[in-house]
Amino acid sequence: MNDKLFALKGAIIHTPDPKRFTIVDDGYLVCQNGLVQGVYEKLPGEFKDIPVRDYTGKLIIPGMADMHIHAPQYGFRGLGMDLDLDSVWNTWFETYSLPEESHYADLEYADMAYDKFVGDLLKTTTTRLCIFGTIHRPATELLMDKLAEKGFAAYVGKLNMDRNSIEGLQETTEESLSETRKWLEETVNRHPYVKPMVTPRYTPSCTDTCMEGLQKLVEEFNVPVQSHLSEGLDEIEWVKELKPEIEFYGQAYDMYGMLGGGVPTVMAHCVYPTDAEFEMMSRRKNLWVAHCPQSNLHSSGSGAPIRRYLEAGVHVGLGCDMAGANTLNLFRAIADATTASKVYWAANERKGDPFAKKTYLSLSEAFYIATKGGSSFWGKAGSFEEGSLFDAVVIDDSSLADFNQRSVRQRLERVVQQSDDRHVAAKFINGRQVL
Amino acid sequence: MNDKLFALKGAIIHTPDPKRFTIVDDGYLVCQNGLVQGVYEKLPGEFKDIPVRDYTGKLIIPGMADMHIHAPQYGFRGLGMDLDLDSVWNTWFETYSLPEESHYADLEYADMAYDKFVGDLLKTTTTRLCIFGTIHRPATELLMDKLAEKGFAAYVGKLNMDRNSIEGLQETTEESLSETRKWLEETVNRHPYVKPMVTPRYTPSCTDTCMEGLQKLVEEFNVPVQSHLSEGLDEIEWVKELKPEIEFYGQAYDMYGMLGGGVPTVMAHCVYPTDAEFEMMSRRKNLWVAHCPQSNLHSSGSGAPIRRYLEAGVHVGLGCDMAGANTLNLFRAIADATTASKVYWAANERKGDPFAKKTYLSLSEAFYIATKGGSSFWGKAGSFEEGSLFDAVVIDDSSLADFNQRSVRQRLERVVQQSDDRHVAAKFINGRQVL
Repeated sequence: MNDKLFALKGAIIHTPDPKRFTIVDDGYLVCQNGLVQGVYEKLPGEFKDIPVRDYTGKLIIPGMADMHIHAPQYGFRGLGMDLDLDSVWNTWFETYSLPEESHYADLEYADMAYDKFVGDLLKTTTTRLCIFGTIHRPATELLMDKLAEKGFAAYVGKLNMDRNSIEGLQETTEESLSETRKWLEETVNRHPYVKPMVTPRYTPSCTDTCMEGLQKLVEEFNVPVQSHLSEGLDEIEWVKELKPEIEFYGQAYDMYGMLGGGVPTVMAHCVYPTDAEFEMMSRRKNLWVAHCPQSNLHSSGSGAPIRRYLEAGVHVGLGCDMAGANTLNLFRAIADATTASKVYWAANERKGDPFAKKTYLSLSEAFYIATKGGSSFWGKAGSFEEGSLFDAVVIDDSSLADFNQRSVRQRLERVVQQSDDRHVAAKFINGRQVL
Repeated sequence: MNDKLFALKGAIIHTPDPKRFTIVDDGYLVCQNGLVQGVYEKLPGEFKDIPVRDYTGKLIIPGMADMHIHAPQYGFRGLGMDLDLDSVWNTWFETYSLPEESHYADLEYADMAYDKFVGDLLKTTTTRLCIFGTIHRPATELLMDKLAEKGFAAYVGKLNMDRNSIEGLQETTEESLSETRKWLEETVNRHPYVKPMVTPRYTPSCTDTCMEGLQKLVEEFNVPVQSHLSEGLDEIEWVKELKPEIEFYGQAYDMYGMLGGGVPTVMAHCVYPTDAEFEMMSRRKNLWVAHCPQSNLHSSGSGAPIRRYLEAGVHVGLGCDMAGANTLNLFRAIADATTASKVYWAANERKGDPFAKKTYLSLSEAFYIATKGGSSFWGKAGSFEEGSLFDAVVIDDSSLADFNQRSVRQRLERVVQQSDDRHVAAKFINGRQVL
C-alpha cells in the first residue's frame, strides 16, 4: 500500500471532545504523509483513485497512548495482586518488582523478555507509550531498538535508583548519572519515533545529588521526564521523612524542574494530592497525569480525582501500569477508569447520600483520556481531526455481536468491556501499518 | 471413559479451608460414582487399572458456582456500564434490562439467545449456578432444558413481577402465582440436576399478596428462594417507602420466610446492610450471600462487607451478575472480589490512615468463595475433599507462562488474573465430562 496517501473504510469513531463521540457509521479516513487528512462519508473526487483498505463492518478508532508502563515487569504479570501494593517497601515490590528487574542486567534475558513484551504489545490498541525500563543502559537501549523495529512511537526511560533498592539493583550516584549521560548520547538521535525520557524512579530511590545531576542532563539534552507521584499514603509519609523541608510530595520534583514547569513531564498515579499539590499541578502546563485505574484499585482500593484534574485543565492520559495491573489492553483501562471514578465518587463525594449527584466519568471521557488525552503529549494526536498524527486501530467485533441491532457507539462500548487481542485486526502508527 | 471410576492426573489445587491452598504439584484426583474419592500423589494399588485422563502440566481446580446471574441479560453484556446502575428505576434498568427481558415472551428469540448463553457458559469454569430467568414460564423451562442437556447443575427462577415493571413485562398477581405454580409442577421433577427456585425479583417488583402466595408455594413444593437485597442506597430508600412498617430491607423477605430462616435462600449483593440486618443475616443458617463484586463496583463504586459476613459465619458465594458485569468468567469475579475488598477497606476501614491494618481478602479466600463457598449450597461440594460432588475444571495455562519457574499457586494466581475461555481445557460436573 502507498503509505503517503490512502484511506481506510469502516465505522469511524473518536473523541475530539471528551463530552461526546464523533461517529461516521460507514466512512473513509484519509491519511496523507502520516497525518489525518480527513474523515468523509463519501470519498471526495480528488481522492477517487487512492488505495482504499476496506474494513467495512469493522470499527476504526484512534490508537491509544499508554502513559505509564513498566516493560520489565511484564514477566510477572498477574502475580502478587493480593499482596500489599501500597507500601513503598512492601511484599509486592520486594517479592516481584525488584528481583525481576534485576534479571535485565543479563542482556540475553532482556532480549528474550523484551521480544515477548513488544510482540504482545503489537497485538493491542496501543500506538504510543511512555515506558519505564530498568537501571540497565544496554537492556534499555535494546528495548528501544525493538520498539522502533515494530514501528511504535515511544519515550523510554533508563531508571535512576541510587538509594533504597536491593543489592544488585542499585547504582552509585556517579554511575547513575554517567550511565544516563551515555544513554542519552546514544539514543537521543538514534530513532525517529523512539526517544529517551529521563526517569528518576521516584523520590525514595533518588538522592538529591542524583536529582540535581538529572536536572542538568534534562536541560542539556532537552528531553522529557517521567516519574511516580502520590501513589500511596505511606509512600507520601516516607517522602515527608526523606525531604522534611518540602510541603508536599510534588515539590520534590518541582524543585528540580520536573513537574511540568519546564520540559514535558508525565507523573504516574497522582491519587492523593494535597490541596497545595493539586493547585501547583493545575498551574503546570507541561504536566501530564498518567492515570492508572486498575493499579490504583489494586494498590489501595482507591480512585484518583480525575474529574477534578480535567476540570482544572491538567492533561490526563491513561496507563496500564504493568505489572501493577494485569494486562496491556487499554480497553480494560478505559473500563477500569469509569469504575475507579465511581469508587472515587462513592468514597469521597457521595458520603452516604442515596441521591448524591453523579460525578463519575462517562465512557466518552474515559475513551478521550486513553486516546487524545495521552497522545497530546506528542502534539496533535489521538483523534481523527485534520492534521493529527495518523494512529488508527481496526477492531473486528463480529464475534461480540448479539441478536439485537447495535449502534457503532454501543459496539465500541462492548469492545471496551469485552475485547482482547483476538479483536485487534490492524494497526497504523504515524501512517504506517504495523499490524 | 468409564464415568463410575476414573482419575484425572495433573497439578491439583483447591481450598478446603479459605485460609490456604491445598496443592499436589503432580497427582491424581479420583472420581467414584460422581463423588471425589480422593487426591493422591501416587495412584494407590487398588486403582492401578482405572482409566486415567492425563492432564500433566495443566491445572485441575474445583468447578465454580455462579450464585447470581441473569441469563436473559446476556444479550446486552458490556453495555450501559457508564449509565446509572444504582438507581432502582434508572437508565440502565430502563434502557437495557427490562426491554431485553421482554423479548423472552417470544420463544423463538429465547431459543436462539439461551442457546448462545448456555454454549458460552460451557466454555467457562462454572459448574453450578443460581439463575434468574424472566417472568416467562415457557422461556424459563426452555432454559432449564438447555442447561440440563449440557450437564449443568443449576437452580433456575421464573421471575415474579406484579408491580413496577414496564408494559408487556408485568404480570397480574394472579398470573404471577398461577404461572409459578404451573412452572413448579412441570419442572420440580423434570431434571435430576436442574431445579426450580422461587424468584421474586426484589421487593419493589412484588406486592405483599404476591409474596404471601409465593411463601405458600415455597412451602408446598419445598423449593429454595433467591432475590436481591440491599444492592443500592436508593433502592433501600424505595423499599422503606413501599414497606414503612419494617425496620430494614431484609425484613421484607424474612417476614415471608425468605431470608434463610426456612428454605435455603440466596440473596444477591447485600452491599449496605444496617447493623440490625447484618445481625439477622448472621443468625440465618440457610442464607447464602451472592457476592457480585464487579457489578457492585459498576453500580455504586462500592465493595461489600464480605470479611464481616465470613467472620459472622454467613455463607458467601460469588456471582458474575451478568449483565451488571461484563463476563461469565468467574476468574474475573475472583480477581474483582479481592479488588472490591480493598475498595471496601479504603472507604470504610482505612479512614486515611497510611498504616491501617489490611483487612482485604486474600486470593485463597476469594477462590474459596468462588468454589466451596457457593457450591456448599448443594451440600458437600466445591473442593476435592473426599465425598464432595465431583466438579473439576482443567486449565491449560501454557500460553500464560513467562521465563521464570512458577509454582502451582502462582500459576493459578495468573490464571485468575489473565485467563479467558481459551484456557478452559476440560470440565466435569457430578463426575460427568461436559467439555
